[in-house]
Amino acid sequence: MRRLGALDHYMNDQHREMVRLAAERCGFSAEFFGSVEAALPFAEQFEVFFGCNCQRVIKAAKNLRWFACAYAGIDPYVEDDAWGNPACLLSNSAGAYGVTIAEHVVMVLLMLLRRMPEYERMRTEQEWRRLSPIRSVQGLRATVAGTGNVGTETAKRLRALGATVRGVRRDKSKGGDPAFEGIFAMEEIDSLLPETDALILCLPGTRETRRVVDRARLALLPQGSYLVNMGRGPAVDPEALLEALQSGHLAGAALDVTDPEPPAPDSPLWTQPNLVLTPHCAGDMALQYTCDRVVEMFVEDLPRYAAGEPLLHGVDRRREY
Amino acid sequence: MRRLGALDHYMNDQHREMVRLAAERCGFSAEFFGSVEAALPFAEQFEVFFGCNCQRVIKAAKNLRWFACAYAGIDPYVEDDAWGNPACLLSNSAGAYGVTIAEHVVMVLLMLLRRMPEYERMRTEQEWRRLSPIRSVQGLRATVAGTGNVGTETAKRLRALGATVRGVRRDKSKGGDPAFEGIFAMEEIDSLLPETDALILCLPGTRETRRVVDRARLALLPQGSYLVNMGRGPAVDPEALLEALQSGHLAGAALDVTDPEPPAPDSPLWTQPNLVLTPHCAGDMALQYTCDRVVEMFVEDLPRYAAGEPLLHGVDRRREY
Repeated sequence: MRRLGALDHYMNDQHREMVRLAAERCGFSAEFFGSVEAALPFAEQFEVFFGCNCQRVIKAAKNLRWFACAYAGIDPYVEDDAWGNPACLLSNSAGAYGVTIAEHVVMVLLMLLRRMPEYERMRTEQEWRRLSPIRSVQGLRATVAGTGNVGTETAKRLRALGATVRGVRRDKSKGGDPAFEGIFAMEEIDSLLPETDALILCLPGTRETRRVVDRARLALLPQGSYLVNMGRGPAVDPEALLEALQSGHLAGAALDVTDPEPPAPDSPLWTQPNLVLTPHCAGDMALQYTCDRVVEMFVEDLPRYAAGEPLLHGVDRRREY
Repeated sequence: MRRLGALDHYMNDQHREMVRLAAERCGFSAEFFGSVEAALPFAEQFEVFFGCNCQRVIKAAKNLRWFACAYAGIDPYVEDDAWGNPACLLSNSAGAYGVTIAEHVVMVLLMLLRRMPEYERMRTEQEWRRLSPIRSVQGLRATVAGTGNVGTETAKRLRALGATVRGVRRDKSKGGDPAFEGIFAMEEIDSLLPETDALILCLPGTRETRRVVDRARLALLPQGSYLVNMGRGPAVDPEALLEALQSGHLAGAALDVTDPEPPAPDSPLWTQPNLVLTPHCAGDMALQYTCDRVVEMFVEDLPRYAAGEPLLHGVDRRREY
């Protein structure tokens, strides 16, 4: 029987049952593993593997035909030598993380606009007074770089809160969700930055997005603006960002990803006051909705794989997403 | 000439010009003061006064005919003995604070749902790991007590983020904004609490709202639910709240108001971990939009006052709002 392995640390019983049933219908036996370590001894037996953070399994799985990545980011699997079988199909779970990351963006942006890091320090000193001014999302000019599921869910929420949101993507001819006031090409970003109160990065980790926000682009943002990075750490030049935060050119920043990640023990990021720093948790599988969607997307694609049809969530790792 | 005094610490030049022009058109001379202390010596000369935190002026202003309160809360002015002239008209600025308080609610609710207080403590120890589970606003069952401007702006935003929002008000026959799934009377709140993931208080400080959330009502909320108080501190029994937070019956709470306010130096509120505590700043005049609206509302009502017409923003202090 054809064998399908799945990491199930984030699954509930209903999820396991969904995978098991879909597998059976397609002629597979589904085996569940609580960890990469548990799955690793069986790696060569899998035709299909469904999981995340499982680089070691993928490297060892010489007979693998389809790896369904439960994360959206596929940067660890771009190169041929990441694979036991470099001809293996790859899909990701890019539609599952938009809601949780978008909620994270709304939270950290409001925390910056309303000077929450300062209020939290005041609390530790039992200081009870108001800070002025603060800023509103209403009327805020946001630019979202990356208009996929994450960028789009972010744009919808910011727009509902009264912001105007422009989107930036690699290929602007593809258009974008109506939540965006306009869609621009990455090459045009420099013309948007001077009119951007909050620059929000929802970009995948690729060669093209590396250092897309450098010293020159930070300087193009208005005095007192904000940077939020929810994609991949290398998109932002960390030295230039720290300078902009320390000089006050940026009023604040929020990073859920860093470069390196985590920051080095002596990195000033740990204590920088006008920075909201979180440990790459915005898009984690901690949200029920995310886990539900990840499993649904896999179960959607399994019969397509079995029938030799193109995957709905397939990605070309040579294009890097 | 009839004299109008205004506190202008929150005004910009445009605001002052708006007030000056409106006053002139109505036969008043407008005088601006940077503080209560500066205005106090002239208190008896004012026919109209426009400001906030100015209890001493109002008490001294024996010839005052209209006090336009720049805040929404009028609890300091309820009793006759707060007034130099108890027959004085009173208006408030209840439409000006909805946006800023609603944005604060969205922020603190997301911080609680996403366990941000824990992540912030982890940051101080350079701990870089994910917490699971977290919760989403999407699908959250919110109950908003108080369906005025603040409650309504809050409901609109939570609904846009995917929550279902029910409203509770003194007189449910008045209905409410379509952002509410339903409007219920305060007497019905006990039947809503068991189905409430987040109880959000946007209530004025009145005799009726005092301890409206007591030990019994907290017990009616589901295990792991959240309380947000943005109205007035006395609405919540502070001992019962602390117990519910410490036992874990409540997963978290956010208080922008306390009782007493500020909390006593030895109050556990200062250090309670699953509590987001802010110094009554949610509805402050720190937001440009708020200041604009406060001035607009006064300028709207001034010709009505001068013509002897009912004020658009008039309040009956005997009803307490």
